[in-house]
Amino acid sequence: MVRLLVLYNTPENPEAFDRHYNEIHIPLAKRLPGLLRYTVSRNISVARGGKEFYLVAELDWENPEAMRAAMASEIGKETTADVPKFAPNGVTTVSYEVAEV
Amino acid sequence: MVRLLVLYNTPENPEAFDRHYNEIHIPLAKRLPGLLRYTVSRNISVARGGKEFYLVAELDWENPEAMRAAMASEIGKETTADVPKFAPNGVTTVSYEVAEV
Repeated sequence: MVRLLVLYNTPENPEAFDRHYNEIHIPLAKRLPGLLRYTVSRNISVARGGKEFYLVAELDWENPEAMRAAMASEIGKETTADVPKFAPNGVTTVSYEVAEV
Repeated sequence: MVRLLVLYNTPENPEAFDRHYNEIHIPLAKRLPGLLRYTVSRNISVARGGKEFYLVAELDWENPEAMRAAMASEIGKETTADVPKFAPNGVTTVSYEVAEV
């Protein structure tokens, strides 16, 4: 399984962020082709490292090819282009294959 | 479910990092009380945000109380104290409750 992890920096206006995220971004991202699972977490606690995040989203696909195809699709491009509209303070996005130990 | 997400910065010496992580840190962390699932990901791709991570670990518990009890236990303290021994370049640790959308 491959995971796209999106860590959102704290916005100036959390209400506007939440409204756009809930009403526009979630419905858009849920249409990504092949998406297996999509979780959204708020109330992020920092245990170490100091960096504060406002929201963490995890999006899972079967394999890297499926993820790349989804992000290259029209919906993928729309989803990516939507991010700066509600998250001008920036975002960290990484992807990795998940292996249980 | 609550997740402890640990993002490791890229080490100077990846071989020494891997050796310590695989041989000491994984066996230690696997003994954390109440741990439901523990995944380790390497070959992290950066899609946006620029920050490079070398390894991402996800550790899951049933609820925040179980996670806090695990980290306050003797094994939890040992696991936390082990991190700077192999990751002098630092780590970002956040925790959050995971909710599917």
